[in-house]
Amino acid sequence: MEFTDQIDPASYFDSYEDLKVHELMLTDQPRQEAYQKAILGNRALFEGKTVLDVGAGTGILSIFCAQAGASKVYAVEASNLARLARAVVEENQLQAVIEVSECKVEDFQLPEGERVDIIVSEWMGFFLLHEGMLDSVLYARDKFLKPNGLMFPDTATLYVAPCSVPSRFDRWESLSGVSMRCFGRALREQNSGNPEVLTVAPEHLLYDGHIIAWFDLMEVTTEELNSIEVKDVIVASRSGKLQGFCIWFECTFPGDGAEEQLQLSTSPSASETHWKQTVIPLPEDACEELEERDPVAFSLTMTRNKETNRRYDLQLTLLDAEKEEHHLPCECHMTKCILMKTHLEKMQVEEEQH
Amino acid sequence: MEFTDQIDPASYFDSYEDLKVHELMLTDQPRQEAYQKAILGNRALFEGKTVLDVGAGTGILSIFCAQAGASKVYAVEASNLARLARAVVEENQLQAVIEVSECKVEDFQLPEGERVDIIVSEWMGFFLLHEGMLDSVLYARDKFLKPNGLMFPDTATLYVAPCSVPSRFDRWESLSGVSMRCFGRALREQNSGNPEVLTVAPEHLLYDGHIIAWFDLMEVTTEELNSIEVKDVIVASRSGKLQGFCIWFECTFPGDGAEEQLQLSTSPSASETHWKQTVIPLPEDACEELEERDPVAFSLTMTRNKETNRRYDLQLTLLDAEKEEHHLPCECHMTKCILMKTHLEKMQVEEEQH
Repeated sequence: MEFTDQIDPASYFDSYEDLKVHELMLTDQPRQEAYQKAILGNRALFEGKTVLDVGAGTGILSIFCAQAGASKVYAVEASNLARLARAVVEENQLQAVIEVSECKVEDFQLPEGERVDIIVSEWMGFFLLHEGMLDSVLYARDKFLKPNGLMFPDTATLYVAPCSVPSRFDRWESLSGVSMRCFGRALREQNSGNPEVLTVAPEHLLYDGHIIAWFDLMEVTTEELNSIEVKDVIVASRSGKLQGFCIWFECTFPGDGAEEQLQLSTSPSASETHWKQTVIPLPEDACEELEERDPVAFSLTMTRNKETNRRYDLQLTLLDAEKEEHHLPCECHMTKCILMKTHLEKMQVEEEQH
Repeated sequence: MEFTDQIDPASYFDSYEDLKVHELMLTDQPRQEAYQKAILGNRALFEGKTVLDVGAGTGILSIFCAQAGASKVYAVEASNLARLARAVVEENQLQAVIEVSECKVEDFQLPEGERVDIIVSEWMGFFLLHEGMLDSVLYARDKFLKPNGLMFPDTATLYVAPCSVPSRFDRWESLSGVSMRCFGRALREQNSGNPEVLTVAPEHLLYDGHIIAWFDLMEVTTEELNSIEVKDVIVASRSGKLQGFCIWFECTFPGDGAEEQLQLSTSPSASETHWKQTVIPLPEDACEELEERDPVAFSLTMTRNKETNRRYDLQLTLLDAEKEEHHLPCECHMTKCILMKTHLEKMQVEEEQH
């Protein structure tokens, strides 16, 4: 047998990005397992039901649904990957159950008057919303989901925590015995003001995670996604160098309530996913050594980009913890908070005595 | 303290590729350690010597040389990274020893009549030569190196081995219980004929490594790099699916001979580097199940691309093992080779008896 592999140098290593992206997603085990468990672990919810898979990609979520007993699955995929999804469906002999449509979900039509019981979708982008496709999922929900239908996933939570970013700062203090601070500084300046997709080790978080936003995916509207603003004071739960802010998300799935709720977590303490974490490194002069119980006041806004709807701009502002209003009671070590906490505890004791 | 991090969405995650590439190289530990040990472990070779660092990048190899006692280091870097290298040199207070020049080594000039004792360079590209800069290093050697000078590294060896590529083939047989053969096929077709930079597990090699080429970097000429051809028969040292050919390289450094020779290996059995391995996956109908001692006949050519000198085209041809000439003696299980091996062994015994 003779075969010649003639290589085209023009496309070396950079061709066909798209399938590589899907390969990355399909081999992202926490992602894959979360959906598989949520769907196949809930056969009772899928048995005999009609499902819509928004942005079906290679069709694997549709196949999980069919395996879980769905009687009909509409797999909607806008790109020509739909043809590949169709082939995958046939390969699994599920063409009687799964119907693949190559169109945007906005152009999709269900048979007259029909609605679906369940919508499944893996729509999440970096820091949940950036380059994601939640808008399309919400459009599908409003148009195609039955009033008592289910969303897979059905909630999404965004977290933020002050953190150290040694890969951006400390690593360059001494690399193989060479001082490379200049390089570290150039690396940060080059990317200045841009968030980076990085892996943050759990021990580099200076707080367990502060909720920025929580979405009930049955209720949230696209308008509510236009701008997400949070202004808050976090109390450092451990000491360390404040060098950035780490953002991640978690999604939960409906279940029968018997077991612990299924979730897909992109937290630093969960197994690494292709989303990793998103980090906003601080400029050098904004970094400081934090002690346990130091307050960190900040505001963070995520705003939909005007030109590119699916992109989000992040804006982080460090605020003066002296001037900002703290939570009540606040665990920080500032005198006013210690006094207030003591006062509140005293009131509580008095109340209990009466 | 108030600081606002306003993010420019247009450059999200894709700006400033160059420093990211250098970050990748600087944090490639096997690469970094090999050079560091080769240089700092050989102070006797560097003490009081003049060194030329070709393609100095961030300047870290120049700094190793200065730390090893070199009296003068010329760090030549064509890109504007040279300015950063200069800052790194100053940060390490080595500006009296290291002189950074922002120019191509082809345009570089040494003081009248001067030559260097040592050339250091990290010039290696994917599968050693692709996108590498060996030509510039050889130019520098011929123009600037003393007759008895040293090259760091001083040899390079290219290896090939038939291998299994489960990430391209078998993984898709059943992914989370779903048959995704179509996807695997599409992934292969998309990249058809192109080598891929992948990590190959040692157990997926069907042979320990066959030398394609060996270069003495003191002697090799750029002309000898224009085309590298090998036509050979490898005998599988273990059974498995033949799904591709894996290529890697090793470089060695000069030493005092007291210790084991220092090397930088990108073999599947060495620690992973940013070069990983280069794999030429076979088309599906060229794949076969190999038994131990099955012969695999092939030819492989690496030819410099006509338009882009630093790129290489690979051409792999599977040949008929029945028709090709085997090594003498050959360990394969073909009758002619078993007979020949027996005959040779008999002759050897007879010779020893006389």
